[in-house]
Amino acid sequence: MARRPALGAAINHFKRDIPKSSKDHEMHAYRTHHCGQLRAEHVGQTVRLSGWVHRKRDHGGLLFVDLRDHYGLTQIVVDSSDAAFATLDGLRAESVVTITGDVVARSAETVNANLPTGAIEVRAREVAVQSAAAELPMPVAGEQEYPEDIRLKYRFLDLRRERLHANIMLRSNVIASLRRRMVEQGFTEYQTPILTASSPEGARDYLVPSRVHPGKFYALPQAPQMFKQLLMVAGFDRYFQIAPCFRDEDARADRSPGEFYQLDFEMSFVTQDDVFNAIEPVLAGVFEEFANGKSVTPAGSFPRIPYRESMLKYGNDKPDLRNPLIISDVSAHFTGSGFGRFADIVAAGDVVRAIPAPATADKSRKFFDDMNSWAQGEGFAGLGYATRKGGEWGGPIAKNHGAEKMDALAADLGLGPDDGLFFAAGREAQAAKLAGLARTRVAEQLGLIDPNRFEMCWIVDFPMFERDEETGKIDFSHNPFSMPQGELEALETKDPLDILAWQYDIVCNGVELSSGAIRNHRPDIMYKAFEIAGYSQAEVDANFAGMINAFKYGAPPHGGSAPGVDRIVMLLADEPNIREVVVFPMNQKAEDLMMGAPAPVSEKQLRELGIRIVDGPKS
Amino acid sequence: MARRPALGAAINHFKRDIPKSSKDHEMHAYRTHHCGQLRAEHVGQTVRLSGWVHRKRDHGGLLFVDLRDHYGLTQIVVDSSDAAFATLDGLRAESVVTITGDVVARSAETVNANLPTGAIEVRAREVAVQSAAAELPMPVAGEQEYPEDIRLKYRFLDLRRERLHANIMLRSNVIASLRRRMVEQGFTEYQTPILTASSPEGARDYLVPSRVHPGKFYALPQAPQMFKQLLMVAGFDRYFQIAPCFRDEDARADRSPGEFYQLDFEMSFVTQDDVFNAIEPVLAGVFEEFANGKSVTPAGSFPRIPYRESMLKYGNDKPDLRNPLIISDVSAHFTGSGFGRFADIVAAGDVVRAIPAPATADKSRKFFDDMNSWAQGEGFAGLGYATRKGGEWGGPIAKNHGAEKMDALAADLGLGPDDGLFFAAGREAQAAKLAGLARTRVAEQLGLIDPNRFEMCWIVDFPMFERDEETGKIDFSHNPFSMPQGELEALETKDPLDILAWQYDIVCNGVELSSGAIRNHRPDIMYKAFEIAGYSQAEVDANFAGMINAFKYGAPPHGGSAPGVDRIVMLLADEPNIREVVVFPMNQKAEDLMMGAPAPVSEKQLRELGIRIVDGPKS
Repeated sequence: MARRPALGAAINHFKRDIPKSSKDHEMHAYRTHHCGQLRAEHVGQTVRLSGWVHRKRDHGGLLFVDLRDHYGLTQIVVDSSDAAFATLDGLRAESVVTITGDVVARSAETVNANLPTGAIEVRAREVAVQSAAAELPMPVAGEQEYPEDIRLKYRFLDLRRERLHANIMLRSNVIASLRRRMVEQGFTEYQTPILTASSPEGARDYLVPSRVHPGKFYALPQAPQMFKQLLMVAGFDRYFQIAPCFRDEDARADRSPGEFYQLDFEMSFVTQDDVFNAIEPVLAGVFEEFANGKSVTPAGSFPRIPYRESMLKYGNDKPDLRNPLIISDVSAHFTGSGFGRFADIVAAGDVVRAIPAPATADKSRKFFDDMNSWAQGEGFAGLGYATRKGGEWGGPIAKNHGAEKMDALAADLGLGPDDGLFFAAGREAQAAKLAGLARTRVAEQLGLIDPNRFEMCWIVDFPMFERDEETGKIDFSHNPFSMPQGELEALETKDPLDILAWQYDIVCNGVELSSGAIRNHRPDIMYKAFEIAGYSQAEVDANFAGMINAFKYGAPPHGGSAPGVDRIVMLLADEPNIREVVVFPMNQKAEDLMMGAPAPVSEKQLRELGIRIVDGPKS
Repeated sequence: MARRPALGAAINHFKRDIPKSSKDHEMHAYRTHHCGQLRAEHVGQTVRLSGWVHRKRDHGGLLFVDLRDHYGLTQIVVDSSDAAFATLDGLRAESVVTITGDVVARSAETVNANLPTGAIEVRAREVAVQSAAAELPMPVAGEQEYPEDIRLKYRFLDLRRERLHANIMLRSNVIASLRRRMVEQGFTEYQTPILTASSPEGARDYLVPSRVHPGKFYALPQAPQMFKQLLMVAGFDRYFQIAPCFRDEDARADRSPGEFYQLDFEMSFVTQDDVFNAIEPVLAGVFEEFANGKSVTPAGSFPRIPYRESMLKYGNDKPDLRNPLIISDVSAHFTGSGFGRFADIVAAGDVVRAIPAPATADKSRKFFDDMNSWAQGEGFAGLGYATRKGGEWGGPIAKNHGAEKMDALAADLGLGPDDGLFFAAGREAQAAKLAGLARTRVAEQLGLIDPNRFEMCWIVDFPMFERDEETGKIDFSHNPFSMPQGELEALETKDPLDILAWQYDIVCNGVELSSGAIRNHRPDIMYKAFEIAGYSQAEVDANFAGMINAFKYGAPPHGGSAPGVDRIVMLLADEPNIREVVVFPMNQKAEDLMMGAPAPVSEKQLRELGIRIVDGPKS
């Protein structure tokens, strides 16, 4: 088992501080070296190691123990004639021992090239038991899967396992790297309050009853949005924070119930370009540092994809750019088509979108039919298709539409003679959504998504407003607090549906890392934007008094974003579940099984807080 | 006003990224330079600056504006004939503007050597108003004191003021430095949960009602003590965290209500010496970095003062070592003394402690009498004294005790012929306390405390147990979870009152930065220690099941500490109030006046949480 060292500095520390040989000094009580440190050059030295009994193997008279600590593994060997034999032999795995012994070279045939310490072993002379382990509820050595409730209840054991240990070290190192890179970009970290007021972020707050002010509550921040904007108003130019955020939402694979962390940042006197220029080196840098050889979009060249283009070409606003397939609108090709269903759809003002299925000449009919069934299973009317082999078209759409028109369509999309097509047709939003899902599924089935790349992009030019399909009313489409492009003049002169916002998302491999925006720092523009969305100045003042009020005393233009730290680590660790990259996570029911939280509290505590439980378990 | 630059990196960033002259590129929308950047070498360039109108001065036809941003101040000048004049003239202080203009050299007599940009000014050609300020509730320029409630309500204005801005930057830089130094020592930062279970720290928890489990509550951590120990049990060798901690306690000057930060750390396989060796370079380093020329106890030479010695020599366990005065026990001198009161005290088994008052020959009788009155005001019986001038004793104690015996006493303490003495007498604990307070007061009055030093020390060898004076019972004196010196054998063989703990405090200039300990990681030793203090194994299991349970599956010897970050910054900033070194603090009534927290919440929110307010304001 080759553990990666935690940090270079940790190892250097050992080299520096701990006497190398017992001949020079009195030996340290617990260790002269750590368990990943000994090499052939140490042969002949008397050393002391401490760690956990990872594995034991009894080879008839010789006992081998893999001794494990944070830094690695060292093989300990003890002969049945040695005093230490009986002690080690009687211990369970995961007991903690201190071994004093001599470093000896392994014979050529027993050298383990996969282990940094594999050239040597330590012949134990003395063993001191620091902590004898009871029978374990789950093993540490080995790759065996265990039920999540056992893993979470005994998280301190689960964390000893190689993969989780490596994930947590990756997380720590990613965060340290983000901090270093943000400082290099001229940012300073500030701590914003955790006990604060409810904010208008939209999700549900965690509340904290006040003892000093009974009947009143603090809220834990869903994000430090207000505080970071107030820091800009206060004149601090470039803020960042590895910020704990709290949302009382039901769990998802990529979101813990309870708390999560974001790389929260904000900058003053900046345009959208400045934000991009500041953060691309940070993100590209941290991905390159921990990508383990995978390629990363270089800083300075993150594609900027307008929202509407993304919805067309990728069917969503978080495109996975490792996927080479591009969706096209082919509605015009079907005006008056022989394929009546598409002709009708186009005539009704709806759309037909095409997803290429390259080099599928040899795919069976079943491949195409299964895609259609899948789409129906997802709740769509169906996914049309046309097959092609050596330029010959197949399938009902091609037959009815006609080969000549199909050729023109294929030429338009730049398709070759063996490239098939899927079609998503209907109302634009639905067709775009199906096309996006089909684009992913087709690429997955055809093995077109390169797992060895991290592809970054910005989605830009989000529309400021949209029309509610049911009520016909104009409302904000995303973030009401973004600055509209064209500022007050645009609001006063343009069709609201044509106004774009200085708002942007960062996307990596189809995962939205964060939203961000140049903020609207001008009360006059804010009132006007809200007026367009149907809110009076009084309503704005009532709901957003804190921010509006602060902006009245001199506010700089500012903007920022907040990439999700947990998501970055999940991408780098290639873990689909956030609980694999958090040290002590809650389960999906928002329980900490190890600490037993949440838990009943005493009547005295409730009395102090001036609250009473309505319908809960008795404490 | 010379603002210190936020960080070297921030300035380099500007030099790198922003075009130096408008001739090469299109000018940035907001700034080509920041307000602390322009020098004589820039004269002749056209530049753009953005910032706040710090001060305006109208010199008959010439308007001078000090433009301020995070980085500094630049003087803007505009002539009444310029287009920009009317705009600038009409703006209130703290408005935000963008100035485009030409860098010109100041005349020799107007150069301001106190300002980094004082060699130049910018002749404004254009001004764009980014944000016009309304009339301010408090000024930003100037040193005027303002009531704290106004300062906290308009914290975003208060933070623009020079001193607070500098304090907050100091705080950020101290924390960044602590992180860097901890990594250099081989530590890794991990984030422990904020929504967790109630812990047995002793203070009051903040509670968070669970929506998913109505009637149950999370608690915010008073400290990540359990988690850091579990990280050691999980095999992570050297943990640290700039950790937010939460205690629902009433406010003190050096403690915010609500949250505070500590440099929380823990190490495995270490002795007390290892902990000291790891952390002394971090603390000495960060103090040296930000001490502004004050001297700092060098790493590797922090004095280690046994608890009992500290209680004797300094009268408390957090001695200010800048104070040269040392308390002595002089009880033996008064056995059978002519000064009957002290003789009686000593005969009763109580003590007499002496505090030197060096070079006080010329102090008036009033000086000594005032000290006695002060002691009585503090609730003590009184503070005796003996004056001395040229070897002649004065005062009733010396008279009754006799010059010869007084000479012997003075010789014993190494006092000179002009050194007076104060006496604190009575029960040992009371006498020590009074002597400690008097030691501080005497040194302050005599100007003996050097303000230009940071004196660090460790207090070590805390007693494990003490006898409750009222009940006569043996109980833990400080932390029941510390490892007793001598471990199980000591518990089984020694008088409990003679057993010391591997427990230590870090003290700087009389301020306790933190407690720490080598932990008791052995359930058998823990049960035994609790048994001595009168608790059964069942009681221990009931109260500390989580930790005891984890220790049963292989726990390493470990220890750590948690220096208070806010206190370190307060010492470095020389601020007596924690609210001066926290970005957005609550007031003493635990209210955030800016955000309006705590606040009433809706009935719907309460219903979701399954709680009801008993006696509070209606929401």
